[in-house]
Amino acid sequence: MRGAMIHAPGDVRFETVDDAKILHPTDAVIRTAVTCVCGSDLWPYRGAEPIGEPHPMGHEYVGFVEEVGSEVTSLRPGQFVVGSFATSDNTCANCRNGFQSNCLRREFMSTCQAEYVRIPNAAGTLVATAEVPDEEFWPGLLAVSDVMGTGWWAADAAEVKPGSTAVVVGDGAVGLCGVIAAKELGAERIIAMSRHESRQKLALAFGATDIVTERGEEGVEKIKELTGGIGADSVLECVGTAQSMSQALHSARPGGNVGFVGVPHDVAVDGQELFFSHVGLRGGPAPVRRYLPDLIDRVLTGVIDPGKVFDLTLPLEQVAEGYKAMDERRAIKTLLTP
Amino acid sequence: MRGAMIHAPGDVRFETVDDAKILHPTDAVIRTAVTCVCGSDLWPYRGAEPIGEPHPMGHEYVGFVEEVGSEVTSLRPGQFVVGSFATSDNTCANCRNGFQSNCLRREFMSTCQAEYVRIPNAAGTLVATAEVPDEEFWPGLLAVSDVMGTGWWAADAAEVKPGSTAVVVGDGAVGLCGVIAAKELGAERIIAMSRHESRQKLALAFGATDIVTERGEEGVEKIKELTGGIGADSVLECVGTAQSMSQALHSARPGGNVGFVGVPHDVAVDGQELFFSHVGLRGGPAPVRRYLPDLIDRVLTGVIDPGKVFDLTLPLEQVAEGYKAMDERRAIKTLLTP
Repeated sequence: MRGAMIHAPGDVRFETVDDAKILHPTDAVIRTAVTCVCGSDLWPYRGAEPIGEPHPMGHEYVGFVEEVGSEVTSLRPGQFVVGSFATSDNTCANCRNGFQSNCLRREFMSTCQAEYVRIPNAAGTLVATAEVPDEEFWPGLLAVSDVMGTGWWAADAAEVKPGSTAVVVGDGAVGLCGVIAAKELGAERIIAMSRHESRQKLALAFGATDIVTERGEEGVEKIKELTGGIGADSVLECVGTAQSMSQALHSARPGGNVGFVGVPHDVAVDGQELFFSHVGLRGGPAPVRRYLPDLIDRVLTGVIDPGKVFDLTLPLEQVAEGYKAMDERRAIKTLLTP
Repeated sequence: MRGAMIHAPGDVRFETVDDAKILHPTDAVIRTAVTCVCGSDLWPYRGAEPIGEPHPMGHEYVGFVEEVGSEVTSLRPGQFVVGSFATSDNTCANCRNGFQSNCLRREFMSTCQAEYVRIPNAAGTLVATAEVPDEEFWPGLLAVSDVMGTGWWAADAAEVKPGSTAVVVGDGAVGLCGVIAAKELGAERIIAMSRHESRQKLALAFGATDIVTERGEEGVEKIKELTGGIGADSVLECVGTAQSMSQALHSARPGGNVGFVGVPHDVAVDGQELFFSHVGLRGGPAPVRRYLPDLIDRVLTGVIDPGKVFDLTLPLEQVAEGYKAMDERRAIKTLLTP
């Protein structure tokens, strides 16, 4: 079969790769319906994370069950399934606590920009839709498998509540999905921090009420102006740099909450500063599995349409161009069709 | 009048100080009923915080209203009052959000080891009891003004819930009060980390179900053993060092919560480690004012007795010995009677 491999920074190739097959009785293999490129894929692509040996890429997927291992009794070939970038047995103590992305048997997916994908812990990871959804819903369901689930988690970790004010730091696909989540969770005011017109437009379409173009301490000042001088109830940190984390922490009001979902790169939080801020901080890889049934339902009933974050669609074989377009910020997020 | 002054590390003197008097129409002056020495007073006493010019000490107090400023209409001379180490108007946005210790008009108290004390923001800060309580309740009410309020906040910030497992890091007065709070909030299992027999006994009397004497990563291993391998739901960090914070963060389960109430000294939290732990972190100076009515009620009805943390009582004029006894760990906490 064929799939994407990264060889070096800036060098992603579509080539023949090992066939996806059942390795454990708890595995399934799916035929990819659609997959995509993630903002986090750009870290190695840009040389900000070591690559080592050439390896497959991709952790977002929806598809059709092709084959299941002998212990997977809840799924059958032909079903349309949505999963998560982190696999989970959905039965361990951490899963039962709602943190499936910290499952004791967790494996991070990394081979999804391909025609077929092996899914470990298939029974606990995959959620099948009642019937095969119309193709128009596939991008939305694909978003649910990562960026929409992650945006939801950001809003959840930031404790967005009805009537509250939320700030979203980061205008990538996750940040934009964070706007959707904040709206769904009842935020009255949603301030998106963005300086890119196309992203601002999408943020407003998703429910943002204000746009702040300033960054850093200037951005924080602007947030304070918009929030009676004290800051926002909830801040969704959807980037992962020291600057974005500082911006997020300073934008929250005393007693407010920051949910951080961008994998932190060189971020250290000063204990005394956090202490005197009274801000609550929680982050991590999104427990997408916890949200899947609800988010799938919201997509299929048309309540949300996170598929709009895909503003470029390419055949899977042009995956390299998909990375390039995102790296150059010509695209928010690239959908790939096998 | 007379009060405590710190001149240098290890050098606290009881001497003539400026009289407490009304400086602003929102002030009150109280006659001290009882006051005490706080674990945090030991930071400058031990030379771990700069002292600068000699200055008064103390931030814990209960007393009798002696005089009120012209704008203080809710209090009258003779009333017995309980306050907080942080004053608050109890009307600003942060106060309304329940974070009175981040009041926009906050002043930190620092002159309370004295015969009389000026209380800024008196109307918002002080809570009067219905009548003058019996002297036996004074130590408990004094504890409420700081260590019990802080222990409660630690448990609240760590989101202790009925049936949960809580770990308390730190066996000082705040940690011991944290045990009381965890029990009141319904924790089923309360693990106190302590290697001092007198403190272990008090922790058990307050409701601890387990004692762990190991520290650092050994202590964390022990916590994991006691919690099915994953860690505790809630951890109360009541020390404020890099080691205690690390111990607390590693003792919490994925998705658990750390409430940190020891003022952090040289503590930096690694963003990526916090991220992958899924642990929620919130701390700060306790919003004691939020809890005062409830905690006063619990003390006066005998539901809790945090006054037991005082294991040494001295006349106020022997305040220097009070510091010394705590510094040498001969006393958990020193009560001072004017």
